[in-house]
Amino acid sequence: MLKAGSTIGILGGGQLARMLAGAALKMGYHTHVYDPNPKSPAFEISSLKTIGSFEDHGLLKKFAKTCDVLTYEFENIPHKALEEIEQIVQIFPRKTSLYISQDRIKEKQFFKSLNLETVEYATICSFEDFSKSIKQIKIPSILKTCREGYDGKGQLLITNKTKKKDVEEHLLQGPCILESFLKFEKELSVIIARNDNGDVVSFDPGENVHKSGILYSTTVPSQISKTLQIDSIIIAGKIVNSLKYVGVLGVELFLTHDDRVVVNEMAPRVHNSGHWTQNGCAIDQFEQHIRAISGHALGDGERYSDVTMINILGDTTKNFRNITNAAVHFYGKDEARPGRKMGHVNYVSPKTS
Amino acid sequence: MLKAGSTIGILGGGQLARMLAGAALKMGYHTHVYDPNPKSPAFEISSLKTIGSFEDHGLLKKFAKTCDVLTYEFENIPHKALEEIEQIVQIFPRKTSLYISQDRIKEKQFFKSLNLETVEYATICSFEDFSKSIKQIKIPSILKTCREGYDGKGQLLITNKTKKKDVEEHLLQGPCILESFLKFEKELSVIIARNDNGDVVSFDPGENVHKSGILYSTTVPSQISKTLQIDSIIIAGKIVNSLKYVGVLGVELFLTHDDRVVVNEMAPRVHNSGHWTQNGCAIDQFEQHIRAISGHALGDGERYSDVTMINILGDTTKNFRNITNAAVHFYGKDEARPGRKMGHVNYVSPKTS
Repeated sequence: MLKAGSTIGILGGGQLARMLAGAALKMGYHTHVYDPNPKSPAFEISSLKTIGSFEDHGLLKKFAKTCDVLTYEFENIPHKALEEIEQIVQIFPRKTSLYISQDRIKEKQFFKSLNLETVEYATICSFEDFSKSIKQIKIPSILKTCREGYDGKGQLLITNKTKKKDVEEHLLQGPCILESFLKFEKELSVIIARNDNGDVVSFDPGENVHKSGILYSTTVPSQISKTLQIDSIIIAGKIVNSLKYVGVLGVELFLTHDDRVVVNEMAPRVHNSGHWTQNGCAIDQFEQHIRAISGHALGDGERYSDVTMINILGDTTKNFRNITNAAVHFYGKDEARPGRKMGHVNYVSPKTS
Repeated sequence: MLKAGSTIGILGGGQLARMLAGAALKMGYHTHVYDPNPKSPAFEISSLKTIGSFEDHGLLKKFAKTCDVLTYEFENIPHKALEEIEQIVQIFPRKTSLYISQDRIKEKQFFKSLNLETVEYATICSFEDFSKSIKQIKIPSILKTCREGYDGKGQLLITNKTKKKDVEEHLLQGPCILESFLKFEKELSVIIARNDNGDVVSFDPGENVHKSGILYSTTVPSQISKTLQIDSIIIAGKIVNSLKYVGVLGVELFLTHDDRVVVNEMAPRVHNSGHWTQNGCAIDQFEQHIRAISGHALGDGERYSDVTMINILGDTTKNFRNITNAAVHFYGKDEARPGRKMGHVNYVSPKTS
C-alpha cells in the first residue's frame, strides 16, 4: 500500500488528470503531472508539474524518479515513453492494456478472444480492402482510423452516397477498421475497477447519449432490466480479469433491439461516462482509480442517488454556475472552442431504483 | 457576478481553505491563499500562495490586489488587517459579522437582540465578578475566554470542586464569559447561506456529537421532529438576515429536554459540522460559500442521501483509506498530533427521510 504523502505521477494534464489529482489529494497523496501544454487543466491542482514532450525521454525519466507510482489519463502515449518510464517506476494500468486499447483492430480481436460479441468488422489498409469488405459489412457502416480517434474524430460514415475519393482520403490517415453500423436501442457504459489483489468492483451501468460523436449525457439508473445490467457488468469483469488489470476501466457497450449486449470499445482510464459517480457514490471513479493503483481496498461502488451528467461543450451562453440543483465541475479551460469539453454538470435526485 | 477565471482570495490556509479552494476550482475560479504557515493544507491546491503574517499589512495589501473578492476560513483575523484589505477588495462575509463572532459576549448580546434564547451568562473580568455571578448562574457552569477559543480550548468547567486559584489563572487569559451549563438533549447545527441579493438557503440541520470539546460526528437526518428542524433553520435565518450576511454561516444550537432550541454560537464561515454536504448534496457548503461570495444563485440545499461525518482526529492506527463505503477527505497534514483534525470520513446511505 502506498504510504500517505507519497507522490502519484500522471501522464497527461487534461480534465481527467485534474479530477484524479483532486481525488489523490483527498486520499492524502501528492501528484506530479506531466504534459506538453503549459495551460493543462490539471497543473492548477497538482503538487508538482513538468511541462514536456512525450518524446523527451530524458525529462520523462527525471519525472518518473519523483513518483512512487505512475498512471495516465489518455491513451495516445508513445510506447517508447512507457518503456523508458517502466524501468524506473510501476505504471498502472499496465502497458499491455493500453496497447490493446490504442488499436481498434487489436481491441476487437481481444474482445473476440474472450467470446464477447462485437459488431462485424474488417481491417482496411487500401481501397481494394475496402471494396472487398464492404460487400460483407454492407452499408451503412463506419470507417474508423485504427489509432488516435476519439470523440468521433477519424470516423467516416459509409452510405450509398460515399465517394471513392472520400474513402481514399480517409485511408491517408493510416490503417482503418470498417465496422458495421449497428442500429442499437441504447448506448451503455460500465465503469469497472480492479486492484492488484484481484478485487473487482463495478459501478452501475450508465446510459449514454452521444451528439455528433461526443458524449452528451450519462444517466443512472439506466432504463434497462437488472439482467441486462448484470450482463454488461459481466462483460466488463471478463475484460479486467483477463488483463489482470489494475485501475479503472471504461467499457462502452451497445444494447440491441433484441436485447443483446455488444461490446464497442474500452478505455484504460477513468471515463467521461463515469463522472456521475462524483455525485452518486461515496467513492467516485477518480478515488476508485487512486485506490486501485495505490493498493487499497476498492470502494464498494454502491450508488446512493440518481444522477444525470451533462457535458458542457464549447462556448455556451447558458450560465451553468447559476443552476441551483446540480453540481458543476469546470475544468478551468480559457478557450471555449466548439465541441470542446469545458466542464460537466451532475443533476442529482434521490435514488429510485 | 464574478467572471470565470477570476481570483478568490482566502485568508487562512487550513483544511477549510483547502476545501474552499477545491470548490472554487470546480466553479472555474482561481484562488490565492494567505497564511503564515508554509505547510498550510490549502497551499497544495491553491493557484497562488502567499506565506506571510496577518500583521504584515504591506504584504496583505499586495495579496489583496491580486484578488477579485476575498474571504476567510477562520475567525481570529486582526481587525486592522481586515480594514487595510477592505480598502482594496470586497471582503465576504462582511467584517461586522466576523467582529460579533470573535467575542462571546458580543455574540450573546447579538442573539439576545434578535430575541433568540441563549443560556444564562455573565461577563467576568475579575474574581469579584465571578463570585457575584456564580450565585446567579450556579454550578455546573463554564468559564470561557471571550476570544480565540475553539475546539474546547479556553474553557474551564466550574463545579463545587473548582478552586479560586483555577478561576484566577483562567482569567489571566483575558475577559471571560460565565455560561450556565445546559443539560441538553441534543447538539445541532445549521449551515445556512445568504447571497447579496438576499436569497437565503439552509441545509438540513445536522446532529452533532462532541468528544473532549471537539466535534466527533455529524449525522443527517437529525433525529428530531420536522417542527424542531424548521425552528432551528428559522433561528439561523434570523441571524443571516439581520446581518445582511454574505456567505455560509454555521450556527450551533442545543435542543433541551423540553424541546426548546437554544442558540449556542455562530461561525462566519464554512463549518466542520457541514462537511456531510460534500456527499449528501449536489452543491456542498464549500461551493455554496463560493456561490454566495461570487454573486451566484445559491444551491437549493436539498439533501439526496443520509450521511454520517466522522472526524479523523490525531494519530490513528485505523487505515481510513481502506474503508469501502465512505468518502475519505484527508487534509494533507504531515504531523498527527493528538486531537488534530487530520481528515474526515463521510458514510453515505440512501435517503430515508
